[in-house]
Amino acid sequence: MAVEVVYRSSRDPERLFMDKAEADRHDKMLELAESLSVVLHRAVPSLNEEQVEELGIYMAKNRDIFARAFKNQPDALGELNGSGDE
Amino acid sequence: MAVEVVYRSSRDPERLFMDKAEADRHDKMLELAESLSVVLHRAVPSLNEEQVEELGIYMAKNRDIFARAFKNQPDALGELNGSGDE
Repeated sequence: MAVEVVYRSSRDPERLFMDKAEADRHDKMLELAESLSVVLHRAVPSLNEEQVEELGIYMAKNRDIFARAFKNQPDALGELNGSGDE
Repeated sequence: MAVEVVYRSSRDPERLFMDKAEADRHDKMLELAESLSVVLHRAVPSLNEEQVEELGIYMAKNRDIFARAFKNQPDALGELNGSGDE
């Protein structure tokens, strides 16, 4: 037995990472997801909490594709397949 | 009286523009909005048609801000104020 270092995002304390960079990425993803949820909920108030959370996380997980789509490649969205992740 | 040229997007035939570039911008905005609606609906099936349409149009109208937010400036979302447009 030995003591070891693990990392986690304070936004999601249950998820532990052995690698700090990975924990950082997870934290940044959740940060973006939260901000997205707030603005989308303000824009479409009929959405419920769960829906805005799902939208935020989905888009934040796929941020590179959405970045390209919003910049000037709407076709990039075609890379998002049914799966809904990564 | 005289004949004049007006422009419109086939995606929104009711809206006429005197300026072709403006009609183009409107068409591109609607194109992006439609693609967004499709992927968001697939990602969060509990959304209804009206909600995904509103989300798509809102994000497409604010595409520059979302492009920056997804790229590397999540804070850009702070520029979106309650109004929901432009």
